[in-house]
Amino acid sequence: MNHPLHLFQKEWTVCRQEVEAALAENLTAVLPPNSPFRQPIYDCVLSGGKRLRPILMLKMAELLGQPQQTVLPAACAIEILHSVSLVLDDLPAMDNATVRRGQPTAHLMYGEANVILLSHLLAFQAYDLIVQNSVANGRSPQQIAQISTSLVQLTGLHGVIGGQMDDLAEARRSFSKQEMEEMYYKKTGALLVLTAVLTSQLCQATAPEAKALVNYARHLGIAYQIRDDILDETGELHELGKNPHQDAQKQTHTKLAGLSSSQTRLKQHLHKAEQSVACFGPRAWFLTCLCQQYGALN
Amino acid sequence: MNHPLHLFQKEWTVCRQEVEAALAENLTAVLPPNSPFRQPIYDCVLSGGKRLRPILMLKMAELLGQPQQTVLPAACAIEILHSVSLVLDDLPAMDNATVRRGQPTAHLMYGEANVILLSHLLAFQAYDLIVQNSVANGRSPQQIAQISTSLVQLTGLHGVIGGQMDDLAEARRSFSKQEMEEMYYKKTGALLVLTAVLTSQLCQATAPEAKALVNYARHLGIAYQIRDDILDETGELHELGKNPHQDAQKQTHTKLAGLSSSQTRLKQHLHKAEQSVACFGPRAWFLTCLCQQYGALN
Repeated sequence: MNHPLHLFQKEWTVCRQEVEAALAENLTAVLPPNSPFRQPIYDCVLSGGKRLRPILMLKMAELLGQPQQTVLPAACAIEILHSVSLVLDDLPAMDNATVRRGQPTAHLMYGEANVILLSHLLAFQAYDLIVQNSVANGRSPQQIAQISTSLVQLTGLHGVIGGQMDDLAEARRSFSKQEMEEMYYKKTGALLVLTAVLTSQLCQATAPEAKALVNYARHLGIAYQIRDDILDETGELHELGKNPHQDAQKQTHTKLAGLSSSQTRLKQHLHKAEQSVACFGPRAWFLTCLCQQYGALN
Repeated sequence: MNHPLHLFQKEWTVCRQEVEAALAENLTAVLPPNSPFRQPIYDCVLSGGKRLRPILMLKMAELLGQPQQTVLPAACAIEILHSVSLVLDDLPAMDNATVRRGQPTAHLMYGEANVILLSHLLAFQAYDLIVQNSVANGRSPQQIAQISTSLVQLTGLHGVIGGQMDDLAEARRSFSKQEMEEMYYKKTGALLVLTAVLTSQLCQATAPEAKALVNYARHLGIAYQIRDDILDETGELHELGKNPHQDAQKQTHTKLAGLSSSQTRLKQHLHKAEQSVACFGPRAWFLTCLCQQYGALN
């Protein structure tokens, strides 16, 4: 069943507006209007971004038969964590980037020390949003404990933080294609898997439903990062909103496998992602269409 | 009622051993023995430190008629957060310190990027320990939500992170004595207040008991920081375990008020701390004795 592209784009826009309104509301609640940290935090979280992760959560909730509001605070939390990971990636001690989403990076605007401290503030804010969302949804203490465990595991050494460490490590230079994809799973896939895990827990998905969403998210995450390498090699600043070729000194999937082989691998992962949610039938159209969009861009 | 010093010291040692064993156990649980991040994390959290905050929690729990085990995971969490705050303080973008607890600072040993990432790993680990402790103690979802809110507030802009930002800000140079003490409350007092709040919530203290412990912690925290300024001016490296006079470029309480006036203010805050727990009678001897120790060191 092929849904027209304009329907996909329309749904994306609607979800994005909902997410951005909720993000602004959640950040305003913790930042008095006269706070000097309002602008840096707004810049980190609210200045653009595709909102892929929270939009995925809203559409996954819908797929599980729940209103999007069921996961909206947690969806904001994931977007906040994603913003934190970008701000950290850009730091002088990491990628030392100067441009992000077409703007000077946060540490250039507000100073490195403030940015590091704000990254902790935002990360804790995100944790709390997830806890509050769980309580508001009537989850039991044991379920809340499980949600907290998932959050720590998927952001930890076997997830986002471990992926970033691998990315920075000297060892990266001699990564095999498989090690590179494992690193991409941790760096990008783990947070997408977290969107699937949280949505499943908040919406009380069945075990097969949760498994389908997790597999979808894992393959989408690896695909996303391979696509990023391809764009970094072929893309332009105005498309990326950040410095292209900034991985020039780094080993990448495209350098390791060659552009054409990376494009094939991208399509394989996108195909596996599509297959993972085939069990939902045509109701999974938005998730399927997203894979097609990612494949078509290259 | 005057308890002899040796009893205080003996209790301190016993509690400290219990805390360090629990810290090692909690960190081991998340770090496989062959992990390259085991050593940096052990160094950050397990290499010395007085363990003031977790020991306070164990003794406060005892004062509330509960076994120390009731708060042991959360006590570890607070010590982990304290370690994180020290590691961040030492970063090149902040105090640019080279020695901590008699050892080279973490970023010199393991690189700034790794240390920033590990600080996030540890902070989330601490959050999870507090959530798991709350669930294990039979707290309701609403109580867990309240605990999470306290955690975010007392570590946020009006607490630890806000205090560190004020400390770094240019504005500090023109702080009044009152503004300096407010900053000290946020930088050090807020985490001590969090020990009181968490212990009260985990042990189901009455409202007056909670208030007494919170007041004690607030005054102890400000006193602690004024004492730190005094030691920085008069102390030696072997006492501090860090570079003395590293606040040479900064406005401090002693510079603002004069050494003798700072010593008076220290004693006032310690006296208020003692008064706050007078309602517990002689059972509060450990908390009272701690104030006397802090006063006697100067």
